[in-house]
Amino acid sequence: MATHGGLLRIQTKGHGEIVDITEGVRAILRSSEIQLGVVTVFGTGSTVAVTTMEYEPGGVADLREVLDRLVPVRRDDGTADYEHNRLNRDTNAYAHLRAALIGPSESIPIANGELLLGTWQQIVLLDFDDRPRTRVVSVHVVS
Amino acid sequence: MATHGGLLRIQTKGHGEIVDITEGVRAILRSSEIQLGVVTVFGTGSTVAVTTMEYEPGGVADLREVLDRLVPVRRDDGTADYEHNRLNRDTNAYAHLRAALIGPSESIPIANGELLLGTWQQIVLLDFDDRPRTRVVSVHVVS
Amino acid sequence: MATHGGLLRIQTKGHGEIVDITEGVRAILRSSEIQLGVVTVFGTGSTVAVTTMEYEPGGVADLREVLDRLVPVRRDDGTADYEHNRLNRDTNAYAHLRAALIGPSESIPIANGELLLGTWQQIVLLDFDDRPRTRVVSVHVVS
Repeated sequence: MATHGGLLRIQTKGHGEIVDITEGVRAILRSSEIQLGVVTVFGTGSTVAVTTMEYEPGGVADLREVLDRLVPVRRDDGTADYEHNRLNRDTNAYAHLRAALIGPSESIPIANGELLLGTWQQIVLLDFDDRPRTRVVSVHVVS
Repeated sequence: MATHGGLLRIQTKGHGEIVDITEGVRAILRSSEIQLGVVTVFGTGSTVAVTTMEYEPGGVADLREVLDRLVPVRRDDGTADYEHNRLNRDTNAYAHLRAALIGPSESIPIANGELLLGTWQQIVLLDFDDRPRTRVVSVHVVS
Repeated sequence: MATHGGLLRIQTKGHGEIVDITEGVRAILRSSEIQLGVVTVFGTGSTVAVTTMEYEPGGVADLREVLDRLVPVRRDDGTADYEHNRLNRDTNAYAHLRAALIGPSESIPIANGELLLGTWQQIVLLDFDDRPRTRVVSVHVVS
């Protein structure tokens, strides 16, 4: 079979928590025994996103800060709430917006059974929802 | 054959219209009869993008509003037009910028013949151009 | 074998340089002799990103300008440096942020041995680091 499918279950605190999921992706890759291919990492749900970054405390704090500034928790004109919140009596419109802008998936090439990441490049899950969640990340290896 | 290729043709109004293309992607997936694999959804052209979101009127309005604010139709310093418009006698520079920032592709894992989306997570095409267009979205299923 | 793996090595000037890598991707695709499939293009490192755009001088200038505005080289409140710089005695925090927001990968469908790009749509590498670099881009073709 040319595709190996796996799942990660990740407990998060929400509120913009950024979780390094590289080792989880690597474990699924190893169990696939695929040497050459592509792994697709996909965050399930409309308030999470997946990207890569150097996972260290400074960069994590900066990324949270820049998203708070670009897509604030409350509309920054102060005159009205987001439409998502208003129409659905909800509170997490900003989480939906951040997730849509960053996107749910990244695909990473594999050679010699290893992810072709940079030395200081990790795969991260960003959970923007405004409460703790158990998140599911699909990790499929195609060869 | 391990890849099944399909196309969607989508009529849009442009001007930031956001179209739910999940059912179209699902129809191509079903015709592929692939049970386990990855589907890649790609928006053709430099003024469209693909992402996922909860497709409801509030979120759609919010995402259009946040993009209008972050990448305005006219340069927000008011002193000059975008270079793309100036050099090419064009009017849609902001559309190019929004498309490049969000990106043209997402890849979604498949198991048991189903897209592994969240319950409230749809695949959307965003057309930022400043006129109605017929858009082509490539949907390839790899297994 | 269903996956063909290739690498591009790209000299950049850093500082937000945007490089058109479409011909390099196309050369790897041709050497694969794959007719129907998906190519994944992945920028190695935490200060580079990959997207698509119409590669012309106006759009390139505008994209650099909009990123300078949204994620400035120095924190725009002027009160403090980014945490990444402060904690790591570094200077390129903004490069990390821009790369994480745009993302490292795009996947492009292939039919008849050709990339299914739009006529005015090129694949670009963005190097945000604050010095010249030799960059590695992984280009894997899956069929």
